[in-house]
Amino acid sequence: MKRLYYLPLLSLTVIFQSYGQTKDLKRYKNASLSVEERVEALLPLLSLEEKVAQMRIFHANIGVEADAKGNLKLSDRVVGKLKLGIAGIKNPAEHMEPVMAAKFNNALQKYIIEHNRWGIPALFVTESYNGVDAEGCTKFGRPMTSAASFNPSLVRRIWDVIGKEARLRGMHMCHSPEADLVREPRFGRMSEAFGEDTFLTTQMVTNAIKGVQGNYEGLGKGTHIGAVAKHFAGYGQVLGGKNFAAIEISPRTLVDEIYPPFEAAVKEAKTLGIMASHGDLNGIASHGNPELLTGVLRDQWGFNGYVVSDSNDIARLFYFMKVAESAQAAALMGLEAGIDIDLYAEDSYAYLPEMVKKNPEIEKLIDRAVRRVLRTKFILGLFDNPYVDVAKVAKGVRAKSSLDLAKESDLESVIMLKNDKKTLPLDKNKPLKIALLGPLLHKNTKSMFEAVLGKNSTIIAEKGFDLTDGKKDIPNLLPRNPEAMNKLVTIAKDADVNIVFVGGDEHTSKEAFFASALGDRASIDPVGAQDELVEQIKATGKPLIVVLKHRRTLSINTIAQSSDAILDTWDLSEFGDESLARIIFGEVAPSGKLPVTVPRTIGQLPFHYSMKEINFKKEYLFLEKGPLYPFGFGLSYTNFEYSNLKLSVNEITPTSEIEVSVTIKNTGAVKAKEVVQMYIKDEIGSVTRPDKELKGFEKIELSPGESKVVKFTITPKMLEFTGLKMDKILEAGDYTVMVGTSSQEYLKTTFKLNK
Amino acid sequence: MKRLYYLPLLSLTVIFQSYGQTKDLKRYKNASLSVEERVEALLPLLSLEEKVAQMRIFHANIGVEADAKGNLKLSDRVVGKLKLGIAGIKNPAEHMEPVMAAKFNNALQKYIIEHNRWGIPALFVTESYNGVDAEGCTKFGRPMTSAASFNPSLVRRIWDVIGKEARLRGMHMCHSPEADLVREPRFGRMSEAFGEDTFLTTQMVTNAIKGVQGNYEGLGKGTHIGAVAKHFAGYGQVLGGKNFAAIEISPRTLVDEIYPPFEAAVKEAKTLGIMASHGDLNGIASHGNPELLTGVLRDQWGFNGYVVSDSNDIARLFYFMKVAESAQAAALMGLEAGIDIDLYAEDSYAYLPEMVKKNPEIEKLIDRAVRRVLRTKFILGLFDNPYVDVAKVAKGVRAKSSLDLAKESDLESVIMLKNDKKTLPLDKNKPLKIALLGPLLHKNTKSMFEAVLGKNSTIIAEKGFDLTDGKKDIPNLLPRNPEAMNKLVTIAKDADVNIVFVGGDEHTSKEAFFASALGDRASIDPVGAQDELVEQIKATGKPLIVVLKHRRTLSINTIAQSSDAILDTWDLSEFGDESLARIIFGEVAPSGKLPVTVPRTIGQLPFHYSMKEINFKKEYLFLEKGPLYPFGFGLSYTNFEYSNLKLSVNEITPTSEIEVSVTIKNTGAVKAKEVVQMYIKDEIGSVTRPDKELKGFEKIELSPGESKVVKFTITPKMLEFTGLKMDKILEAGDYTVMVGTSSQEYLKTTFKLNK
Repeated sequence: MKRLYYLPLLSLTVIFQSYGQTKDLKRYKNASLSVEERVEALLPLLSLEEKVAQMRIFHANIGVEADAKGNLKLSDRVVGKLKLGIAGIKNPAEHMEPVMAAKFNNALQKYIIEHNRWGIPALFVTESYNGVDAEGCTKFGRPMTSAASFNPSLVRRIWDVIGKEARLRGMHMCHSPEADLVREPRFGRMSEAFGEDTFLTTQMVTNAIKGVQGNYEGLGKGTHIGAVAKHFAGYGQVLGGKNFAAIEISPRTLVDEIYPPFEAAVKEAKTLGIMASHGDLNGIASHGNPELLTGVLRDQWGFNGYVVSDSNDIARLFYFMKVAESAQAAALMGLEAGIDIDLYAEDSYAYLPEMVKKNPEIEKLIDRAVRRVLRTKFILGLFDNPYVDVAKVAKGVRAKSSLDLAKESDLESVIMLKNDKKTLPLDKNKPLKIALLGPLLHKNTKSMFEAVLGKNSTIIAEKGFDLTDGKKDIPNLLPRNPEAMNKLVTIAKDADVNIVFVGGDEHTSKEAFFASALGDRASIDPVGAQDELVEQIKATGKPLIVVLKHRRTLSINTIAQSSDAILDTWDLSEFGDESLARIIFGEVAPSGKLPVTVPRTIGQLPFHYSMKEINFKKEYLFLEKGPLYPFGFGLSYTNFEYSNLKLSVNEITPTSEIEVSVTIKNTGAVKAKEVVQMYIKDEIGSVTRPDKELKGFEKIELSPGESKVVKFTITPKMLEFTGLKMDKILEAGDYTVMVGTSSQEYLKTTFKLNK
Repeated sequence: MKRLYYLPLLSLTVIFQSYGQTKDLKRYKNASLSVEERVEALLPLLSLEEKVAQMRIFHANIGVEADAKGNLKLSDRVVGKLKLGIAGIKNPAEHMEPVMAAKFNNALQKYIIEHNRWGIPALFVTESYNGVDAEGCTKFGRPMTSAASFNPSLVRRIWDVIGKEARLRGMHMCHSPEADLVREPRFGRMSEAFGEDTFLTTQMVTNAIKGVQGNYEGLGKGTHIGAVAKHFAGYGQVLGGKNFAAIEISPRTLVDEIYPPFEAAVKEAKTLGIMASHGDLNGIASHGNPELLTGVLRDQWGFNGYVVSDSNDIARLFYFMKVAESAQAAALMGLEAGIDIDLYAEDSYAYLPEMVKKNPEIEKLIDRAVRRVLRTKFILGLFDNPYVDVAKVAKGVRAKSSLDLAKESDLESVIMLKNDKKTLPLDKNKPLKIALLGPLLHKNTKSMFEAVLGKNSTIIAEKGFDLTDGKKDIPNLLPRNPEAMNKLVTIAKDADVNIVFVGGDEHTSKEAFFASALGDRASIDPVGAQDELVEQIKATGKPLIVVLKHRRTLSINTIAQSSDAILDTWDLSEFGDESLARIIFGEVAPSGKLPVTVPRTIGQLPFHYSMKEINFKKEYLFLEKGPLYPFGFGLSYTNFEYSNLKLSVNEITPTSEIEVSVTIKNTGAVKAKEVVQMYIKDEIGSVTRPDKELKGFEKIELSPGESKVVKFTITPKMLEFTGLKMDKILEAGDYTVMVGTSSQEYLKTTFKLNK
């Protein structure tokens, strides 16, 4: 009924808008014109409803399906939507293997182009934090895991593969990577981001975006996909670690610590998209925050891509966050703030055409949003080359080089936290009876270990018990299983070495989706009888290697005490246990470093190494000082000796730089990699200053006896911070530079900034 | 040497300043002039060094002593200081009983007046959060305890006694009360303030100040002392609960939640003084924050008294917080920000005379500060009546009415958290063998219980074990004591009823002074074997009453499970155990209510009931929902039935009000008091809104069968909050009003605000 009412008006609009312009209705199809010219040529042709259709993404699960032969089968609901065109579709063909997916996506794109008046293609969108979230693609370690590599070029190569695999199957955008700092281990999504540190996260996020976008050039060439950095802003610090909770971060901390990864994503890595955060920020819902989405993002940083809502979050401004009086008010709030695309909601931007009737001014904001979406589609070359070459898919996805890269990344990401009496590596030449035990053992762990194992050794694998009942939304902890415990201990007694797999799984740490699902925790202790298991296995007297697999930082005091060696893996690739075995048997020395601080207890939170110095002046009653393991920490099978820390000059001015050099020597017996870390501390500032901040790192490889000189450059830019008046300032005075193997073990020297 | 250099210059200054003004050098002594006229008459007479002396308070422990006869005995250091006059002295005569103290303070004041050129008297300063911090004064319960009474008039009467007792012994100012919201149980000073809630704290702080200042009129009359509300601002939420740590509170939360008790202290209660906070606030050191100390405090709120530093905190801007490049820069920073008095430091405002030489402009700021100090002294009548009437002291301090008030306050402050099967009260007429057990038992607990005990009952008291070794700066936990545990259990088996005293003491929760002292904790579990003690006593099968004494919120899941009844006392007056016994034996029904939320675990922090609604949308995995005990909760020996919640009208406008009425009936068998609580929720706001906020409460007493109608008024002012643009706004829309017995048990109805 409504449609009938609008149609004459809309037709008139088209005619009126076209009048006085070039009569070439196909001008936007001219590939020799600039992106901006093509956007401006197309926009006026669209009816209001067509425009709003370019501001909505729906999920393929509402009826984008294939019949038994893989042919397109669209629900009535989808067919109805596509008549006006669509901004994009989330996860089409996600459960199809790549070749079939590419064919399907071509067919779907063809249908879309042919069924909207102007032949506007759609964006096919996925998520991809550890590989394209679709059947048959390479599965890498999670971002927290690759952050532990402290190897940005590795991250870039991983995301290059992700971008290629996605584009090959016909996708165009990913709602990844996360540029959030995760400083809250209670939060179930902790492992989806690159850790607690601003500098490390910035390096990793920019490399992820450059990788997935093929250094931007891959977008138009059709070889890569666009990135959407998220969740803008502050989402990694939801209060109490609860998804959807409030976020309180002081304005100065926001600018100095939370914004930089996003700013670099925009300015340096040229991300095509930004996703807003579920949460509020100091009381203002991020999806309704013009200062954030327009003031900071557009006006300050010059972002020119689109901002997409998180799932249903514009509508949620009304019914959940309760900062809008109606669904329509929520839609207007999101639109005014700068949300260009409404992800999923049926009760939000869907109301815009109706709302324009009452308030024609809104159309200007709609045009603003549609320009950004169309611009993205032109940049991706979708008007000119909407289809993918199916012939290339089979060879391009899960290429051997990609799988090898997943393994290479794992090998650089395992963090050795403890290695008493050189328990590790195990001697491949000795005949050993090795027991793999514990709830985090996977089905293929045994075979992966056997593939690496020396000839005369044997492997016994026994999981023993599960942590939870695995219920989807709200899993329950399982009670202690005495029989399983006894069985594990019996096996352990008979083994030469025990490798115990503990930590947490996808049920103990996950995204707490809307509705009833839970994923956040009020404890960071390992659940269930895991601590007891470690203690009991240790009590057998046999060498005990603990492997940690987990998705949130855990308080592992018991494990730290009751083990001989600890390998912290977070969540490796699909080949993780193979890489782990290679490290355990000494083929490769571990070189991962902690991308987060490991506290002794949840009672020390919040705790990141770069907190203000004044936070470290007092300790707690009845608790040992400091963290259990500091940020940047990780052991090797060799020793690295740091010496000869030198500065090119001892003074810096606002226009000069300092070159820092340090010599690192491998004084041990095996070839290994080391992450050389540079921290800087501003001794006195007009505002309270961090205890120290990572400002440079480099991963090097050294053979036994080999030395290298590593150089860093200190620039004035690195020393800037937000002053009393909220402006970026550079202050004269004394600075300390620390170069070493972790945030707590380093050589140091000082320099002075003169102004 | 320096003095010689300055003297000629200073003398010239005095002559120059006097020139052209009235030649009446004694004009400021004319009591018929206004305070402002007298200040302006005196200020120009002072030399620069005399001015700066009026900006410093030293502690009596540097040499303000008495000889064996109680005569003044001053160290050379003190004599040297007093030549120029002094703003004040902290804690003179603190260890003398009141009459002697009054005499001593008179003599000290006389000495001061006679030894500075203009005869300027000094302020004698104390602390007084639970009574005057000096020998021989009445000791009341701590602020958190009196907050639990939810009885502001009781608090006013307590502080009236404090003000009188302090003035009687010759004191003039107290560095109390705390207007901080304490939302961090890890913080060792938690019990020094009035709880987590803005409204409750505001009521208590304003009544404390009105009480201690004798409704302001007592200041000039010489019957009361001036208050110093502290610590401005945000100190109750130091990060991680660590003293001296950073404070991060978003600007909107500051204005809506943290500032109101201070604003009311200034505007409504007319506090004479404000003390700045140790901490920074969002990166800016509070002692160097002109926006806070001048912008908000003076310009917005019109504060006209003085701002005093916390101990050494101006100097600490340099050497501790590191926001100033030198001690002199720190002094200038404090002065410019608006700190009028430097508490204790020898290396801060002491530099001001020297600094004026280089920068004469500074003297204007010095004059600003000195005016405020002199004004305070004139308001207190010290120029006209500097001495106290020693004859009044003996009768006035520790008067029976004051001691009775301490007991009355205790009786209203005990919170009954649990009372299964009517374990409480104990029947006085039954012959019972009662065991008082556990580490929080005091020396006099037994005799206090015996004073209340029925004739045929007997009391056995056995502490069993201590919690710590009691070392002053850094106490150590004592190991579990199996013998003591066995002894306690043996006694318990033989008793008819066991009353177990657990919680924490002055060693497990205290102010972590500067230097090495620790007082904050990373755990809120009861320390040592206390949970085990409760479990073991419970296992005897005898009725178990747990009495909690503590200075921080504790996670008491085990106690909540393993007890029949719980009485939560925080930290009562010197007669606390007597009041406790009276409640236990049913002479008085408990009527205290929780002034804080009791979480199930430290992992739920931060957790206060008035957090934004969105914080309560998601719960945690593997944890029961909500708090263990909610804010405002407390049981009685009777039942109260709430009915007939009515609003006078269902709509409010910016210029109208709503009267709320509710009927409360005592449906039980004993006379008792109840705290009727009104909460309001703004259903939708332009910024995310609290889940609910306390906006009214009234404590009533009802006999069995009796009903009362309690009325509250909802005013538009109550509905204001800080909007998107940081201005105070009032928003049209729906509101819910809840009236009940706690923040989680209430009747509710709705109204609408029309604009």
